[in-house]
Amino acid sequence: MAYDNDNIFAKILRGEMPCVKVYEDEHTLAFMDVMPQAPGHTLVIPKSSAENIYDLAPDAAASLIQSTQKVAKAVKQALQCGGIMLAQLNEAPAGQSVFHIHFHVIPRNEGVDLRLHAKDFVEASELEPIAAKIRAAIT
Amino acid sequence: MAYDNDNIFAKILRGEMPCVKVYEDEHTLAFMDVMPQAPGHTLVIPKSSAENIYDLAPDAAASLIQSTQKVAKAVKQALQCGGIMLAQLNEAPAGQSVFHIHFHVIPRNEGVDLRLHAKDFVEASELEPIAAKIRAAIT
Repeated sequence: MAYDNDNIFAKILRGEMPCVKVYEDEHTLAFMDVMPQAPGHTLVIPKSSAENIYDLAPDAAASLIQSTQKVAKAVKQALQCGGIMLAQLNEAPAGQSVFHIHFHVIPRNEGVDLRLHAKDFVEASELEPIAAKIRAAIT
Repeated sequence: MAYDNDNIFAKILRGEMPCVKVYEDEHTLAFMDVMPQAPGHTLVIPKSSAENIYDLAPDAAASLIQSTQKVAKAVKQALQCGGIMLAQLNEAPAGQSVFHIHFHVIPRNEGVDLRLHAKDFVEASELEPIAAKIRAAIT
């Protein structure tokens, strides 16, 4: 499948759609998932166009994981969660729904099940206070 | 928690425990998960000592994701699966059970549920034919 320039993350990167941003650098952008599987669920994406792990340039993969590390540490500190799950889903049968590669950074806590199929939309105004904490924790 | 030099992946890296290897380079090693959540479930680890994403050196993170990319593409080609899930679990509440950082590369297929908590041990002799296919597909 060819990369679709009109996917929602491409629109966010072009500023055509809003996002609740937590981190940005030359190569990557991180923002709150609007259908979080747990509070603090954050997404990290490359600025370069790639659909999935198969077609991402190795340099872009490096900067993507390094930003994901920064975000994971910040989410851990901001949310004081028990652990962090990183997930990166490739193709629809694996659960990919937006076809611009992204890492999920998901806080986990003992005994709290994950909402595996996120369905509930959360307003930006609700995400913003969590995002502010994560932003403050990014080093 | 300090890095435990006697964790099972540290032993594999020192050659004190066997593994069904699919890929190795200067910085990383990939081998079959002996309690696969799906056939073809492969693990990718750095050779440097790190417990999780919080304490992994950024350079090691870069080589780890680049090897994970190679393995993911090879697993996709070898297994002809519908998609690939990458997962990386940090701390016990997130499901981490071996405290040397590792990426899970898990084949996914439409309508086939993942065994979320891998419990069944699979013999090396059973894993070897799948590993051979993955090895052959690595570029």
